[in-house]
Amino acid sequence: MLNENHMAALKALVSDKGLVCDLSDMATYEKGARYDEGRAALVLRPQTTEEVSAVVAYCVKNDLPLVPQSGNTGLVSGSTPDATGTQIVLSLDRMTKRFDLDLDNRSLRLDAGFTLLEINRRLEPHGLFFPIDLGADPRLGGMIATNTGGSRFLKYGDVRKNTLGMTVVLADEAGTMLDLNSDLRKNNTGIDWKQIFIGTSGAFGIVTECVINLERLPRQTATAYLVPASGAHVMPLLRAMEERLGAYLSAFEGMSKDAVAAALSHVPSLRNPFQGGNIPDYVILAEISRTWEPREGEQSLDAVLETVLGEIWESDDAPLADAFVGPASEMWSLRHALSEGVKHLGKLIAFDLSFRRGDIMAFCDHMKAEMPHTFPEITICDFGHIGDGGVHFNLVVPKNSTTASDPDFEKRLRDFVFSIAVEKFDGSFSAEHAIGRKNQAYYDQYTHQHIRDLAKGLKSITSPGKLGTVRF
Amino acid sequence: MLNENHMAALKALVSDKGLVCDLSDMATYEKGARYDEGRAALVLRPQTTEEVSAVVAYCVKNDLPLVPQSGNTGLVSGSTPDATGTQIVLSLDRMTKRFDLDLDNRSLRLDAGFTLLEINRRLEPHGLFFPIDLGADPRLGGMIATNTGGSRFLKYGDVRKNTLGMTVVLADEAGTMLDLNSDLRKNNTGIDWKQIFIGTSGAFGIVTECVINLERLPRQTATAYLVPASGAHVMPLLRAMEERLGAYLSAFEGMSKDAVAAALSHVPSLRNPFQGGNIPDYVILAEISRTWEPREGEQSLDAVLETVLGEIWESDDAPLADAFVGPASEMWSLRHALSEGVKHLGKLIAFDLSFRRGDIMAFCDHMKAEMPHTFPEITICDFGHIGDGGVHFNLVVPKNSTTASDPDFEKRLRDFVFSIAVEKFDGSFSAEHAIGRKNQAYYDQYTHQHIRDLAKGLKSITSPGKLGTVRF
Repeated sequence: MLNENHMAALKALVSDKGLVCDLSDMATYEKGARYDEGRAALVLRPQTTEEVSAVVAYCVKNDLPLVPQSGNTGLVSGSTPDATGTQIVLSLDRMTKRFDLDLDNRSLRLDAGFTLLEINRRLEPHGLFFPIDLGADPRLGGMIATNTGGSRFLKYGDVRKNTLGMTVVLADEAGTMLDLNSDLRKNNTGIDWKQIFIGTSGAFGIVTECVINLERLPRQTATAYLVPASGAHVMPLLRAMEERLGAYLSAFEGMSKDAVAAALSHVPSLRNPFQGGNIPDYVILAEISRTWEPREGEQSLDAVLETVLGEIWESDDAPLADAFVGPASEMWSLRHALSEGVKHLGKLIAFDLSFRRGDIMAFCDHMKAEMPHTFPEITICDFGHIGDGGVHFNLVVPKNSTTASDPDFEKRLRDFVFSIAVEKFDGSFSAEHAIGRKNQAYYDQYTHQHIRDLAKGLKSITSPGKLGTVRF
Repeated sequence: MLNENHMAALKALVSDKGLVCDLSDMATYEKGARYDEGRAALVLRPQTTEEVSAVVAYCVKNDLPLVPQSGNTGLVSGSTPDATGTQIVLSLDRMTKRFDLDLDNRSLRLDAGFTLLEINRRLEPHGLFFPIDLGADPRLGGMIATNTGGSRFLKYGDVRKNTLGMTVVLADEAGTMLDLNSDLRKNNTGIDWKQIFIGTSGAFGIVTECVINLERLPRQTATAYLVPASGAHVMPLLRAMEERLGAYLSAFEGMSKDAVAAALSHVPSLRNPFQGGNIPDYVILAEISRTWEPREGEQSLDAVLETVLGEIWESDDAPLADAFVGPASEMWSLRHALSEGVKHLGKLIAFDLSFRRGDIMAFCDHMKAEMPHTFPEITICDFGHIGDGGVHFNLVVPKNSTTASDPDFEKRLRDFVFSIAVEKFDGSFSAEHAIGRKNQAYYDQYTHQHIRDLAKGLKSITSPGKLGTVRF
């Protein structure tokens, strides 16, 4: 348990203002940016890898539990302290010094505390970006700990695919600093240790520095809303688009009618773009993009998209019922407003699932048929990244619901959804938010005993100390 | 040591013809496809994961050393038995049954014994391929164990980026079958264990089944030879191409004058494509490609490439001295003949290095300046994947050399090259062939003690038995 001596010792290990114990100042670190709240014993804000190492070594030797915190924008209680007030938060928010751009290598070595927006703001003048497209603004360390994907996964992949190297501090008695900082794209000289720290919620070490891959910024985009002829036509439509557009295709996002309706009703800045205001059962937002400026003699991307949609429209058993090309900013505004819109309907319980691409619509149809029997009050407002199999399966409970006030309600609901997603459809109970405290029970339930034993073994040889919110 | 009882027991664990002990039949498995030769105690050819499991369990319990072998096309003695005649080869060559294509998911679940050519032959009618482009024809299990990259890495990435899941048999007393067979593209529910088995030469388990990502086959390509204004202009040229072509750019391969000259002299089918027959000091083979059939109103890819080269030609401090668009098959024929051509010059000692992209030319220049002082007889015939930092640094010793007959010569040479590549340029001593017996000493020398200890720990919790050619 943290005492006065520990406080003094820890204060000496971090630079000025690196220790926060004032209750009001700690509040920022106790509350997630979107969900979740806990109580911290203390907040530490180191500025260098060496400071992180010293702090971690001290905490491990004194058996003090540490929760690494980055942008704290996740869904699954992965970076907030629990309610006990005994955990020390280690925030990366002051790790924002090193920012070394290598234009020839198209890579960036930087401290893990930078936010995604700040990284891309600094890269913009060079025509480059870190190609993980998210609604939230996380810090890099947390993006690695959750292996975020986002809306352009289809084209650029996830954080794992765009991480070249890192420095990690292990939770052992030495606070070992592991230098895995390669800038190399091809390097097979042993275990690729950095992989262990990606997507594992910070339980195996604290990422303090990273080397990331950069991509060229798109200079032209075109977007369209596509209305599939039916749910069964979503996959043929995606395949037709991939076949005809290849690496031009940068997003293929699905939006259900209820999600769209919620956004249009509750977000005043939006305009209803559908003919006669009739929202289709399901809408795809497709985006194509390319990285160069328009050239003379080259078709515009709008024209390319029109041509491709025309080809698909005229194909046998055409998967399209309707389609129209429109302005990217307006089309994405609706997509990005879905979460906000849904929240106005009642209490939102959000699931971040993924499936084989061909199973997404079948899962959603199954749930729309089954849900009313077991949870009659719930509205399903799903949307998702069809191109990579990710589904934001959002359930809304009416504000005045009495059933939902049952303290066991949310657990019953999660058990129900996950049992069908994982057991019936071989899906994932966490597509891009990792485990956190919220998914611990499902990790325990759905992970094979042998894999869990291996994870325990790996934890004991890397970071035996109390680190993070997940028990591996 | 293998005895008659073991032979009988092992024979009972594999299906008909699964055990090879006839000397002449074993010979195929004792010699690498391109390099290396050893002696096997026995060759086992299981057909299913269950058979692999039974064999591995038996060998671990009886302390019999196993060397997993796939296509055996590598450079580093990763899959041939050593000279002692005590190691049992476990070949994947009969693991070629399961081949389950998921068109919606753009993925393929298959046994690990399929060869790359066979996989792509079967995928071709669907307009898909496994996008790892290699000169050799390895089997999939070995491609995973080495994490091969190849000539289109720049566009598609390596095997790691294209592997979704796998089944692995661990070298423990149970021959544990680890089911890591996800078809999911987004799944962050714990450690991504499959990463441990990628690029680690089969030491941590035997991959028996995999799920791989597929890409759309290119339907149009255009290629050009680019002559950079100088070595220092290679990176500006690459950046100019990436900026103007984005995801169209599918190869950017460098070829040194001596490598090109060797190929043109010794491979009769080739034509000298350079003006007046004068081979430039360095030539880039650039390829652009797209996945769709030509459309009306769309510029041909040759025209796109001409336009882009014209833009670069007219830019300030133009990085180009010369460039010409030409037929893809002829241009790639020269590129693919480099290895063969170089072998005609003398004894080839091949290095598979990688660097930050910006350091490739500096390394080659440094070596061309330094090499004559230390190894005066050697000719450097380098070529490489400039777009991803990979360099095939090929050294040729004259056939009648007396220096090279010194048994210590090759070791001295390797020590020299690696010391400069790794210590001076932060490069990798193995870009895409992993470790094998040949690089063991350099793994030991260049891997930090803490990392080696972690690897030992991981080995003991996953596959404590004697497996593979590398000692982690």
